[in-house]
Amino acid sequence: MENFKNKKSFRETKKIIDRITKNDLSFKSGKIIGSMCTIPFKTTNYFLKRYMTVNLGDPGLFPGSAQLEQEAIKMIGKIFGAETAAGTFVTGGTEANILAMLTAKEYSKGLKKVVLPESAHFSFDKAAKLMDLELVKIPLTKEMTIDIDLAKAAIDDKTMAVVGVAGSTGLGAVDNLKALGELCRENNTYMHVDAAFGGFVLPFLENKDDRLKFDFSIPEVKSITVDPHKMGGGVIPSGCIIYRDTQTASLSEIEVTYLSGGKTSHRTIVGTRSGAATIASIATMLQKGRLDYIKTVRESIEKTQYFYEKITRSDNFESVIKPVINVIGLKSKTMPTKELHQELNRRGWAVSYFNNYLRIVMMPHVRMRDIDKFFKELESIVAKERR
Amino acid sequence: MENFKNKKSFRETKKIIDRITKNDLSFKSGKIIGSMCTIPFKTTNYFLKRYMTVNLGDPGLFPGSAQLEQEAIKMIGKIFGAETAAGTFVTGGTEANILAMLTAKEYSKGLKKVVLPESAHFSFDKAAKLMDLELVKIPLTKEMTIDIDLAKAAIDDKTMAVVGVAGSTGLGAVDNLKALGELCRENNTYMHVDAAFGGFVLPFLENKDDRLKFDFSIPEVKSITVDPHKMGGGVIPSGCIIYRDTQTASLSEIEVTYLSGGKTSHRTIVGTRSGAATIASIATMLQKGRLDYIKTVRESIEKTQYFYEKITRSDNFESVIKPVINVIGLKSKTMPTKELHQELNRRGWAVSYFNNYLRIVMMPHVRMRDIDKFFKELESIVAKERR
Repeated sequence: MENFKNKKSFRETKKIIDRITKNDLSFKSGKIIGSMCTIPFKTTNYFLKRYMTVNLGDPGLFPGSAQLEQEAIKMIGKIFGAETAAGTFVTGGTEANILAMLTAKEYSKGLKKVVLPESAHFSFDKAAKLMDLELVKIPLTKEMTIDIDLAKAAIDDKTMAVVGVAGSTGLGAVDNLKALGELCRENNTYMHVDAAFGGFVLPFLENKDDRLKFDFSIPEVKSITVDPHKMGGGVIPSGCIIYRDTQTASLSEIEVTYLSGGKTSHRTIVGTRSGAATIASIATMLQKGRLDYIKTVRESIEKTQYFYEKITRSDNFESVIKPVINVIGLKSKTMPTKELHQELNRRGWAVSYFNNYLRIVMMPHVRMRDIDKFFKELESIVAKERR
Repeated sequence: MENFKNKKSFRETKKIIDRITKNDLSFKSGKIIGSMCTIPFKTTNYFLKRYMTVNLGDPGLFPGSAQLEQEAIKMIGKIFGAETAAGTFVTGGTEANILAMLTAKEYSKGLKKVVLPESAHFSFDKAAKLMDLELVKIPLTKEMTIDIDLAKAAIDDKTMAVVGVAGSTGLGAVDNLKALGELCRENNTYMHVDAAFGGFVLPFLENKDDRLKFDFSIPEVKSITVDPHKMGGGVIPSGCIIYRDTQTASLSEIEVTYLSGGKTSHRTIVGTRSGAATIASIATMLQKGRLDYIKTVRESIEKTQYFYEKITRSDNFESVIKPVINVIGLKSKTMPTKELHQELNRRGWAVSYFNNYLRIVMMPHVRMRDIDKFFKELESIVAKERR
């Protein structure tokens, strides 16, 4: 980058930044087919601009925005089946999961052992590094969900928290959360559900399946992570941590003895918080409403189904599991996943690489024609490899 | 808030949000005179809009933006006197300070004792709650900086980190960091400087004072927190953690085994990160350049001086210390701080309340005429109280 000493015009600045960022991929290209993020709702920029200066970390200055945030949390809590819900907007699923672990640490008065599926998100590794937690990662069943028998054997009165996943990072799998909840009952163990991705999918599925139950209707669930900036149509940074009630929410609280409104308290890891992103994401929720979310989810599932059928009809590919939501784990039957990933990268496709499969996510920005192109590319890579 | 079931038009949504947020204060009103935030630089919205979808947590998708971030970190590192600097943009000072404590925990291989001034920011309490740290808060001298003799007595080979503050939250005071550094030398103790506020003030002061030295020119300093969204003219959320070198930076690293670019790693607490805010803040730095920062700092100091003189000439008020930068601790000689604060609040003024003083911050959005109005209001409150 150029020398800081000389100030630059707007035009020069744009030019410098354009030059450096020119290798970024764009969602509009249709080639990002393995990300859980997407293009935010069309009114986002209006709200980002209008509320640019709002700091939710200082509710004394912005009491209205703080109230709006709380009303939105209540609204999401209701979607998740809890009239008493409390919580906050945070930067994303990682902060939400770390807060849940902090809350569980306080709740359990200092225990450190966490029982969670092998499919859990890396944010729990971050939490473990911060809090010196002992993560007991439970192997998965062939449906790629937590093995309930093995979880049962691992949970004891030294367990700080049990984590279940509703829409796993790699495959969109949903753990058997009802059964997991039952294991938490005896010792009243803290149970957290990571629905960062699934939280804006599962409530809007047309075919309700009792095995996909993930919310506060499971009596042991104490907190849920959900990210508006994934399937919510919101804008980065927008995550939420939703607790069953205020009492649970207050466990993560830290008193702040100054700030303009006098004494207040924070229930977040970060201090200063983007009101703009939060309000833009809330505005999206209001404008979409339940019906639009149902539509978005239906279309994403249709695209998933379309791609899944292409895969299963092909001799060259397979899916790790039958997709539960709009995430697919893709494997080649003929070439190593790593090589397939590298070749896709070389051809400009962005899919996520897991140890032995690729993750495809059918987000709203992915069009049918992108799926066709992508599948053609896959077949062409495998054919070339075979020659 | 209205029912989620019915979708709302853009107009209805604006109306709902306008109604709920109408009690928010605005920086433009001139009545926010105690916040460390301000109105972002004029080109902010252009960059927020253009880079809305950039997620710095996924550098495989956005390699250009990731490179831009690293170049900006290098640029700030140079301003702070380290050619070898490494680090990341984060959400703000709190995340940066927590990361510094995590890094120190790794550096010290698990020690827990942190020596820091009583004036340290509450983010260290958050870090302590997360990581079970033992905070040894050292009393302040009459200049309201850490008492070096008491710090010396507290630092030993069990000390995980020593924290100094460059621009304290309440008073803008700058600890004697050179002396603090010397105390870290013997045991090679990790030293962190919280310059969240001072980092964009101190390098641009016209009258350099050796007692205000805070950066990597002090050989023991291993990391510095600095917030572009305070005096940097940047937009929320924009903080930075700057380490002396890559080796230190890598201590906070957590491997992420998926994501589109293949394996990567995170050196942040949060996962998904706002590229938009980071790029908008970097664009501001490029457009302001050293000369504009010098001008902004000079004007802010002049306003501080102007207000300080008003106070010292008045029989009714005093300043806790002679201001070092553009922060003033204000006390009434005749009425309790708490009552003065409440009355100011009632009259629509936003100042920060500390235990026995009010914090006034002369940010760029505060105009001379706001200062005059504010001072008049102060005199009128005290006069009314006396009747």
